Amino acid sequence: MQKEVAKAIHSFFHPSSIAILGASETTMYGRGILEYLQQLGYKGKIIPINPKRDQILGIKAYPSVTKVPDPIDVALIIVDRKYVLNSLRECAEKGIKSSIIITAGFQEADDEGRELEDKLTKFANETGLRICGPNCAGLANIKDGIVISLLREEGRKLLGGNVGLVSQSGALMMALAGVARDKEIGLNYIVSTGNECDLEVSDFMHYMIEDPSTGVIAAFVEGFKDIQKFREAADLAIQKKKPIIVLKVGRSELGENAAASHTGHLTGSDSAYNALFKQKGIIRAIDTDELFEMTKIFSAGKLPKGDGVIILTSSGGTGSLTADLCGDLGIHLPDLTGSTLEELLSLEGLLTFGKLGNPADIRGQGMGIIKQVLPPILRDEKFSVILICLAFSTVGPGLAQKIAPDIIELSKTTDKPIVVLWIGRKKKEDITGLGCGFDLLEQNGIPVFEKPLTCLRAIKALIEWNQFQAPRKEDVKVEEASFEISKEDISRVLGNKEGPLNEFESKKLISLYGIPITHEKLATSVEDAKKIAKEIGYPVVLKGMSHDITHKTEAGIVALNISDEVKLEKCYMEILGNAKKYNPKADIQGVLVQEMVKEGTEVIVGMSKDPQFGPIIMFGLGGTFVEVLKDVSFRVPPITHRDAEEMIKEIKAYKILEGVRGKKTVDIESIIDTIMKLSKLSLSLKDSIAELDINPLIVFEKGKGTKAVDALVIRK
Amino acid sequence: MQKEVAKAIHSFFHPSSIAILGASETTMYGRGILEYLQQLGYKGKIIPINPKRDQILGIKAYPSVTKVPDPIDVALIIVDRKYVLNSLRECAEKGIKSSIIITAGFQEADDEGRELEDKLTKFANETGLRICGPNCAGLANIKDGIVISLLREEGRKLLGGNVGLVSQSGALMMALAGVARDKEIGLNYIVSTGNECDLEVSDFMHYMIEDPSTGVIAAFVEGFKDIQKFREAADLAIQKKKPIIVLKVGRSELGENAAASHTGHLTGSDSAYNALFKQKGIIRAIDTDELFEMTKIFSAGKLPKGDGVIILTSSGGTGSLTADLCGDLGIHLPDLTGSTLEELLSLEGLLTFGKLGNPADIRGQGMGIIKQVLPPILRDEKFSVILICLAFSTVGPGLAQKIAPDIIELSKTTDKPIVVLWIGRKKKEDITGLGCGFDLLEQNGIPVFEKPLTCLRAIKALIEWNQFQAPRKEDVKVEEASFEISKEDISRVLGNKEGPLNEFESKKLISLYGIPITHEKLATSVEDAKKIAKEIGYPVVLKGMSHDITHKTEAGIVALNISDEVKLEKCYMEILGNAKKYNPKADIQGVLVQEMVKEGTEVIVGMSKDPQFGPIIMFGLGGTFVEVLKDVSFRVPPITHRDAEEMIKEIKAYKILEGVRGKKTVDIESIIDTIMKLSKLSLSLKDSIAELDINPLIVFEKGKGTKAVDALVIRK
Repeated sequence: MQKEVAKAIHSFFHPSSIAILGASETTMYGRGILEYLQQLGYKGKIIPINPKRDQILGIKAYPSVTKVPDPIDVALIIVDRKYVLNSLRECAEKGIKSSIIITAGFQEADDEGRELEDKLTKFANETGLRICGPNCAGLANIKDGIVISLLREEGRKLLGGNVGLVSQSGALMMALAGVARDKEIGLNYIVSTGNECDLEVSDFMHYMIEDPSTGVIAAFVEGFKDIQKFREAADLAIQKKKPIIVLKVGRSELGENAAASHTGHLTGSDSAYNALFKQKGIIRAIDTDELFEMTKIFSAGKLPKGDGVIILTSSGGTGSLTADLCGDLGIHLPDLTGSTLEELLSLEGLLTFGKLGNPADIRGQGMGIIKQVLPPILRDEKFSVILICLAFSTVGPGLAQKIAPDIIELSKTTDKPIVVLWIGRKKKEDITGLGCGFDLLEQNGIPVFEKPLTCLRAIKALIEWNQFQAPRKEDVKVEEASFEISKEDISRVLGNKEGPLNEFESKKLISLYGIPITHEKLATSVEDAKKIAKEIGYPVVLKGMSHDITHKTEAGIVALNISDEVKLEKCYMEILGNAKKYNPKADIQGVLVQEMVKEGTEVIVGMSKDPQFGPIIMFGLGGTFVEVLKDVSFRVPPITHRDAEEMIKEIKAYKILEGVRGKKTVDIESIIDTIMKLSKLSLSLKDSIAELDINPLIVFEKGKGTKAVDALVIRK
Repeated sequence: MQKEVAKAIHSFFHPSSIAILGASETTMYGRGILEYLQQLGYKGKIIPINPKRDQILGIKAYPSVTKVPDPIDVALIIVDRKYVLNSLRECAEKGIKSSIIITAGFQEADDEGRELEDKLTKFANETGLRICGPNCAGLANIKDGIVISLLREEGRKLLGGNVGLVSQSGALMMALAGVARDKEIGLNYIVSTGNECDLEVSDFMHYMIEDPSTGVIAAFVEGFKDIQKFREAADLAIQKKKPIIVLKVGRSELGENAAASHTGHLTGSDSAYNALFKQKGIIRAIDTDELFEMTKIFSAGKLPKGDGVIILTSSGGTGSLTADLCGDLGIHLPDLTGSTLEELLSLEGLLTFGKLGNPADIRGQGMGIIKQVLPPILRDEKFSVILICLAFSTVGPGLAQKIAPDIIELSKTTDKPIVVLWIGRKKKEDITGLGCGFDLLEQNGIPVFEKPLTCLRAIKALIEWNQFQAPRKEDVKVEEASFEISKEDISRVLGNKEGPLNEFESKKLISLYGIPITHEKLATSVEDAKKIAKEIGYPVVLKGMSHDITHKTEAGIVALNISDEVKLEKCYMEILGNAKKYNPKADIQGVLVQEMVKEGTEVIVGMSKDPQFGPIIMFGLGGTFVEVLKDVSFRVPPITHRDAEEMIKEIKAYKILEGVRGKKTVDIESIIDTIMKLSKLSLSLKDSIAELDINPLIVFEKGKGTKAVDALVIRK
């Protein structure tokens, strides 16, 4: 990240002075923002800019920023769109480096708006005056009470914390800040980036990742303008161990594409986002509610050491419910055994009431002595996350005031995450005097959930994120030195035309990148074919090669399992005949003579291109699995060994690769190798090829490798 | 439902007098319930029973119910478990018909408890004194303010409404009542059934379905004691058009079973529940939160006429988000076009701001004139549900007070469901003076949601339930008269042993029920086999038949595609040899000579038995789909035409049956017919057979039927 950008963003959140261009006593924005800054006791200087007024709400106003004697850190622009560029010019003249344009009516509005916005972008690039917006809802430093936005917390205080919020939607930034406040989640910096004529979501993310006071980043995104910038921010987040939780929308807006390859047909940019998020350990939330429910558990700041969860519940029904959901989500519930169980059994009164398994149903009575119940569990290394489920009856008057403080106290003694699932009334007015247990827990940083499914999804995300972060052995890289790639060879294969390569050429190309292919040669006469077949050894396969025929089977120009010269001659002639019949104008490059591959498992590995992401790699099982069930996985190059391994294990039919019905496990390592080589190919040839299918790639049993039996490369 | 049971339940909810056996001034239960009844101003008679006191909390107490001069409607029993049976005896003597036993320590506790509970059940059966419990948390008539339970709404009023709540868990009944109250969902009758020594969930459901004041039933269930009773309640609910929303837990407690057939192996009782719920239009909630979120939308009482939903949103981001979720859930968003669009475009001010598609982004300004925006949409028949999405910024001070009443007013003018999704702060203290828009909407019966996914799942459930209820043509019944089933034939095939039938016998059995099988005959000599093969016509298949060998292929006793007598003889001898090798002790019943079936699509249809549900029918595609991907569906007999059709369409691989890769659609109607025949078989032979697989059932192209190529029947 450029230092200058970081500096500009720093000013946004820590301004010594804010000029409001368009301040007024009468308009909603012009008055509202100024007034709220005053109310919050903003300690810096507020400078209203309005050519028609001497003062606004008791503060001296200036006709232009250029007339202000003091330095200005941030310019907030809320003037009509036609004056925006001029305002920016004056800001630049004044030496301002950070501006927020709330004014709408640009990119999102009409042609005139689009033209105007292009000018803003150009101006920012030329002058280095950074812009947040236009068409945004501003930003705020909630922790320090500086709100440069229409956002208001009427009737209650802002709640500062360690959560950064970045939203492209202005309305949702304000709405989400309200949601966070309702959930007692403390915010740090929040920003809406609007049309992103200059600064974008990733810039603010980057700043927050670098910022020590931000612990978690929540984001609402409709699309990243610059994927590379986002990747860099995500990489930095991995390095700094900062969780990023993203609600990415706009999936339904994807159009159908009309690609020639299977891979191209099955890839949408949402699959690319999903893949990249997985590769970078980004947590993906399903909706606005989950965005902050997930954030809550990360914001508490405790990470589990392992994946074992124990459930303590006050009701058997809640135990069954949570166990079901753990089953659905694949959350590990280790058995409650050994000395931990013994210690619990020795607690007076506990055995009488409960069922001590996992879930452990300790009933209301057990909750009453939670201070004795929890310590043995906290000492047990099998349990990394403690989930306490409270049903209302347990925490009625009296008990609520006791259990909540007990949990809060215990939580202070451990670095294991303690999470509370609270089912039942939670409204403040419930319990008078001492305050409600729910609120107490929330206010003391215990993640407390009302919705069982969301609670367990959040726990699962916490465990998975932590596993992603865990130190691991260096990812194996494809050996650069293990094979020479001659640029000349590549150019010769690719030629200088557009459109498909034939199978022979396609396979030559992938073999240059070290992907094993069938023994084969192109024959241009029957005699030639016979000679090659002899060399390769019968049985062989014959395939007609033509740039004009991609569906070879349909055209009848494939002959399998040819056992001798007589049959070869017959098939050769048939293939030529069928090709002519199928497409009389087809240019035939020859007939490919190919080894007949012995049985193996068919998989597909392919590459397709997304306008934003560039190459995307797909993996799936051959046949129906890809075509009908669309059981495929994606990753974005560069693909590491671990990425490749995960993408293979991700498909539903993975079990087939592990061996079913008496079949042996296939050579998974060899598929990984192929995927990594294809990743390398896709990056180095990204400007030359548009799509690539290896279909099928035959995988043999463990240790015996793979072989590409057919391939299709589409040139750009 | 027995009249006497209905009467007893009626007394529970409308008692003229309640005796509290174990009333006291000092114990939590003994005092608490009495006190709360007083506080609520219960108009009937409260009669404390306590042999040691003359009066409790100012009310005259009696030593026993038998000493009470007035009649008693309901006995609430909270005495120690060892006195419970005696208390019941006295109640019976007094002529009481309805009792609630809150006391725990029975079935759930220990052997002594189980014995005691058996006695309670016996006593109830003998005397007709109905029992709710033991180990329950009582029940309540919330609408009339009669709470015979520890449930309390401290500091706020009970909220009466049309929702009945039935819960097996006592703790959760109370917790869920609190959740409902928090969500401003009005309850009618609520009950916890505890151990169900007598009355069970289905009895109370039945009562509530019959009861005109109950509109919706929400239930928390760990398992139905008597499935048949639940089926009858569900059938009544269909007839009375009352939605039942069930949270059924305990899925994770299913053990692995060790069945011989695929069907048996893949069936768990949760699949049976799922199947039955689908067959009966029961809505299944995923957790306690969704249970009441779903209830909310049904409780409002408006049903959509079609499946078209329109989304009006104040923010583009929310529009994208909700459209994504509609895509995921398969919710239909018809285009906004024609005269409706024209009318909207003619509204002053609307065009300037919004994007009028579906979702229609009308921004805050459009929401401000919602009274003009909504009428044309309400008139458009394409739109059956209106979802209004409000982000906080839209409904800040001022606007909230305007929009909420506008929506409430509009809702009164239409019978289309209007649903509000509210993203942003909702707490009461937000907007002073006029009250918060969120609360206003809630209190006026508009279903208002905070969680986008839950909101759309609820809308989807509403639409689907309504479609389920829609009048439809009478389900086709399997023609009883189309084939004669001779009981003698059946007995002859089944024999009188346990364990597997061989393929020949199994297929004979299913063919007696009209399921088409391959042409085949059992040969006991080579000559015999040759004769049969000639009759059937070559090519044929030979299969060794033995009750002792179920895995024929593994044993090497299947020979396919035999083209002539020479090959037949050779294979015949091989099969006999292999059978001996595989299992020297195997009893060979002969060699089956079978027609070789021409290509078709392999599916599996099977039957397995659940201890509770009895027979369950499974359907899936052959091979990997069933074995590896477990892509199967279930229904509980009797299976209607519609059930069978739905179960076929439910599997993920359904597209394969519709025809892919140039293949024609298969004969779906014929699979339906087979499933219905199997349903019939499974009911009529439920006492004789334990499992049944038809694997494969070959399905030919549309109009050409099916043929069972192999089958396995396991006798009980």
